[in-house]
Parts: sequence; structure tokens; C-alpha cells
Amino acid sequence: MSRRAAPVVADLVARARQGDAGAVARLITLVEDASPALREVMESLREHVGHAHVLGITGAPGVGKSTSTNALVAALRTAVRRVGVLAIDPSSPFSGGALLGDRVRMADHAVDPGVYIRSMGSRGHLGGLAWSTPQAVRVLDAAGCDVVIVETVGVGQSEVEVAGLADSTLVLLAPGMGDGIQAAKAGILEIGDVYAVNKADRDGAERTRRELRSMLSMAERRDGAWQPPVVMTVATTGAGIDDLAAEIDRHAAWLSGSGELALRRTARARREVEAIAMTALREQWRRPERTADLDSLAGRVAAGTIDPYAAADELLAEG
Amino acid sequence: MSRRAAPVVADLVARARQGDAGAVARLITLVEDASPALREVMESLREHVGHAHVLGITGAPGVGKSTSTNALVAALRTAVRRVGVLAIDPSSPFSGGALLGDRVRMADHAVDPGVYIRSMGSRGHLGGLAWSTPQAVRVLDAAGCDVVIVETVGVGQSEVEVAGLADSTLVLLAPGMGDGIQAAKAGILEIGDVYAVNKADRDGAERTRRELRSMLSMAERRDGAWQPPVVMTVATTGAGIDDLAAEIDRHAAWLSGSGELALRRTARARREVEAIAMTALREQWRRPERTADLDSLAGRVAAGTIDPYAAADELLAEG
Repeated sequence: MSRRAAPVVADLVARARQGDAGAVARLITLVEDASPALREVMESLREHVGHAHVLGITGAPGVGKSTSTNALVAALRTAVRRVGVLAIDPSSPFSGGALLGDRVRMADHAVDPGVYIRSMGSRGHLGGLAWSTPQAVRVLDAAGCDVVIVETVGVGQSEVEVAGLADSTLVLLAPGMGDGIQAAKAGILEIGDVYAVNKADRDGAERTRRELRSMLSMAERRDGAWQPPVVMTVATTGAGIDDLAAEIDRHAAWLSGSGELALRRTARARREVEAIAMTALREQWRRPERTADLDSLAGRVAAGTIDPYAAADELLAEG
Repeated sequence: MSRRAAPVVADLVARARQGDAGAVARLITLVEDASPALREVMESLREHVGHAHVLGITGAPGVGKSTSTNALVAALRTAVRRVGVLAIDPSSPFSGGALLGDRVRMADHAVDPGVYIRSMGSRGHLGGLAWSTPQAVRVLDAAGCDVVIVETVGVGQSEVEVAGLADSTLVLLAPGMGDGIQAAKAGILEIGDVYAVNKADRDGAERTRRELRSMLSMAERRDGAWQPPVVMTVATTGAGIDDLAAEIDRHAAWLSGSGELALRRTARARREVEAIAMTALREQWRRPERTADLDSLAGRVAAGTIDPYAAADELLAEG
């Protein structure tokens, strides 16, 4: 716990807002460490957030997420002053051994002062992605990023979570990965605002595009709802990346114009507040000085002397 | 909401305990529907649970989970009176369109009164897998199942969640799926008590076994800790399935003997109580008659008039 960080929060925030990458990094570390200073950090950031467009990028392993993010950052940087990238690795909640080898590809932007790149694990966070990522997004937003990209591997719930954190969600596919049925199973048809079929120079790209289009067309949409476009890209050569950036811009404009942006941001804030409250409660419930602490109640449930609902009642009764 | 179910709870529980499959199905539906009667159900079940050995089965799509579960159920049924299977599909939290086509393979057991099979989605449940699955397991346990299998596709967090719900966890792999690096990324090396390399008659099975063994041997284990065995199986022919069942039995015996069973069950009860309490709180926080309800607080956070920690404080202050 970095309690000593507290006195320097105002200074860190001021430096981050002036474009000091070291201060930005330090603030994100406070998020990762769940520092007690975070409360003060978020209070200081409050009036400076809300400017950044938050773009979630997800896709199965092997579709070319890092390369696509890399190419997209380059395309976005021609139009905006500052881009932040949070690369989330939700794979292992147990160990710090995130395999971030593909991060080295992002080294293209290592010398661009207009690009912040940060890898984050969701390990160790009681509230997972829902707790730490929005706070890291706030740091990058307040630091003047016009776009904040949250990139995560599209497996299980993490892709749904990333969609919940973003203003716009880009879903990446690639040909020949059995996308069809897998796409339907993984629920990606319901989270994408923009789709890219990457590796579009490979066999089967057109078929993947056709299948995706067909499945998207079957989804029921309200009148005036956004129709997710499908863009063909080859991230390694940059082909189609400008089109992709344009579609993302178009979605951002639609979000503002339709009122959907405010709805999405309120929903995001709801999850964020809930995650912070839950984390506080979990800590409270574990305190051994309680009459009914969670551990002893769990022991009684396991032993069969109390049922889980009655145990939850006891937990909540003590507050 | 099936409030009218409440009066018949005692009767349903009594019939389920006598082996009435319809009553078991009805009770699991109460779990799926998050019925208000659940509280009474769990109270009635309390004294009848704790007998079943809970086996989690997970693995990537395509490793042969359904076929393996099917074969394992047949092997287990030679030794035990009753087996329950919960097939969890966590893929889509949004729609009821779970693709359960492979469930039909389980039809082998459709006429065996000693086998209960139930598919469950985790959609719609506020607490997800953590909330509904343990309660469904309790139903099957109280209904006299000696073994309850919880089968889920191994993607993202769901495999970690299933390990948290089970006494023993079986992780399935198959050759030629790029298992090596994926296995490490997905954290499956940290959750398996028993591993099976299925489709062991295919090219590369031996290499998959070797890589897995090698990675497992690198994991640090305490003295006296369980060493996860790796079994070669061909679920479609039944080859290796008896060995697999024997290893699962051996793990069950080790769990009891080492005291680990009580630890795992207490940890499971802790998550279950927490999930029930969280669900109750979420409902409470949404009540519009509150001074500080979650929705209006979220609106203020999104508008930048309050920071998320201060909003969480207001939420918790009102209880």
C-alpha cells in the first residue's frame, strides 16, 4: 500500500494534465495497486474527465488485435493530439505471469509522446476489469487523451465487459477461425458497433465477411438504431485501416447525435460505482471483529448448520 | 415470478429426494428463474446436502467435452446410484439463444433414471454462474446424486469460476489446438486436479501430453500437495475413461484425507453467500424511493458532478 503517495496526488494530477508520461504511469500504478490514494486521485480527476472517446477492441486470440490496434493508433494520431491504449490481459487471475510478448509490436509508438501505452492485468483486483479499467480510463482521459483504446482478448465474459466500458466497441475477426458458429456463441454479434475482418488478404475473408453480415442482418434493431459496418483490413500493411478509423469516427458522431452516448456513460458509471461499493463491502465483511464475518458464516454453510440465504441475511443485518 | 410455488416447496423437496426427476427439474427451474421461493427451497435442502462429490469439467471448444462427460457418466454409473449433470453455457449473457446442439449426444442417458441432465444458461442472473450454479448443485445433491458434474466451456473466467464451484476439476485438452501457449494464457494449469488429453488417437496427442506434463512440473507445489495426473482418452470409443474415473476417485479420496475438501467447500460457501448478498444489495440500490439510488448517482458521475468514490459512499451510507 502506497500511503505515502497521498500528499503528491494533486501534483501528480497536475503533471499528468501537462502531458508528463511518468505522472500518467504513476497514476495508473495507483489504480493497479488499489492504492488508498485512489479516492483522492478520482476526486482530483473528476472535473477533467469526459472528453475522451473510449474505444473497446476485442477479438479471439490470433485475429491480429495488437497489430490492428497499432495501425489504428497511427491512423488516429493523424487527426488527434493524444491517444491512450490500455491493453488488458484478463487471462490469469492467479499469477502475474501475463504473456505480453506481443506488446513489443506496439514499440512503433514508443517514441511518440502523443501515445500512452499501458498493459494491465485484471489479476488481484477484487472487482476485476469492472473495477480497475474505468479508473485507468479516467486517468488517460484527464491526461488529455482524445481517444482511449481498451484492448482485451475476446474470450468469455471479458469481451462483454470491455463493451460495457467503452463508448464504441470494435470487434475483430479473421478468416478461417471457424468464426461463424463461434461468433454466435460468444455473443460478439451483440456487442460490436464496428466489425473488422482482419487478414482480409487470406482465403476465406470474403466468406467470413458474408457470414458476419448475414448474422448481423438477422439481429433485431430498433428504428434509427446504428447498423454496425463491416470493414476489411490487413493490419500488417495498413490496408483498410483508414476506412476503419472513419467508421469509428462515424459511430462516435452517431453516439453524440442520438443521445446514446449519455446513456452508455451513465450505464458505465453505474457499474463503476457498484464495483467500488462492492469492493468496500467485501473488505467490511471480512473483518474478523464482526459478529457475523463472511468466513465464519461460510464455515457454517459448509457444515450445513445454516443455509446460504440465512447466512446472507446475517451478513447484511450487521451492515 | 412464481410466488405461487412457495406452498409446494416442501412437497417438491420431498419428491425430489425420492428420485422424482420432474420435481428435481422444477426445483432447478426455480433457481433459473431466481424465484422468491428459492429462500425456502434452500432452507429445506440444507440438512440434505454435502453428500455429492462435485466434479467440474472444462476445456476449450472442440476438445470433446460433451462426449467425455457422456462417457464419464456411463463409467461412474457402474459404481454409484445417481449422477447429476449441469451443462452450463456462459457464452451469451444477452439472449436465450444458447447453442446446445451437442446436448443431444447426452441422449445416451435419457432413459437412465439414475442420471439427471440439465442445461443452464448463466444469462439473466445478476450474479452469473456464481449465483445460480451452486444452488442448482444443492438441488442435485439433496436429490441423492453421488456425483454432480458441472460442465462448462473453458473460455475466459468461466473455467476459473467452475473450478471455484467444484470439489475436483477435470481439464480436457486435445492435440493440435495450439494448447501449449493457450493453456498457459488461460490459466488452466492452475485449476486442474485431473487432466485428460482427449482424442488421444490423433497426431500430436503424445506431444500435447508431454508439453502439459512439462508445464505442470514447473508449477510450485507444497509438500504433500496433490500432483495432477494426465490421462489419455478417446471419449468416442471409451478408451481411457475408466482410468480417468479412477483418477477422479483418487482425487476425491485425497480431498477428504487431506482436509482440503472442507477448505474448498468453505471457500465455495463464502462465494455463494457473497453472491446472494450482492444480489440483494443490487436490488436495494435500484429502488427509486431511495434518496441516493444507484441510477441517479450514476447520472451524476457521468455528468461529472460527483466522483465514483463519493457516489459509492452515498450509496453505502443509505444502506
